[in-house]
Amino acid sequence: VAPLEDSEIQTRLQALEGWSLSEGAIEREWKLDDFAAAIAFVDRVGELAERANHHPDILIHGWNKVRLTLSTHSEGGLTESDFALAALIDGLS
Amino acid sequence: VAPLEDSEIQTRLQALEGWSLSEGAIEREWKLDDFAAAIAFVDRVGELAERANHHPDILIHGWNKVRLTLSTHSEGGLTESDFALAALIDGLS
Repeated sequence: VAPLEDSEIQTRLQALEGWSLSEGAIEREWKLDDFAAAIAFVDRVGELAERANHHPDILIHGWNKVRLTLSTHSEGGLTESDFALAALIDGLS
Repeated sequence: VAPLEDSEIQTRLQALEGWSLSEGAIEREWKLDDFAAAIAFVDRVGELAERANHHPDILIHGWNKVRLTLSTHSEGGLTESDFALAALIDGLS
């Protein structure tokens, strides 16, 4: 995987729902029903991440919100892997 | 529960392992073996938090690190509840 060009990043962002660019990463926030639902969501994201061998930063905050941040540290930027995992995660909801 | 005085906070902090004060909250970071271990740790913290009905902010980052941040938002500060949950979480390791 190689870092994507800015124009490619914009195209791929538009194909996703609710993700935005933030400091060289893409992030999205979900509001769940409660803390237990937030943890359960993180478990499902974790399974997808393990299968993809690509690991987002995950913040559970305010007892029912989950923010995921994706980037490819080894490449110093955004790659196919980030957008592929984002699309899989969007398929969960 | 009422906010604790600064002197009480210091005393209680010293009774814990590895927690530090940060912007009106206490936080601690764990380094786990891998991402799956980090998710499993978060699940166990989640169970303790649900039982205590007190919910930390949880950050999983760098694929194997977990940072927990505890404060009592409803009281605008640190309370007994924060230190009680921190002690329970420390009991996990």
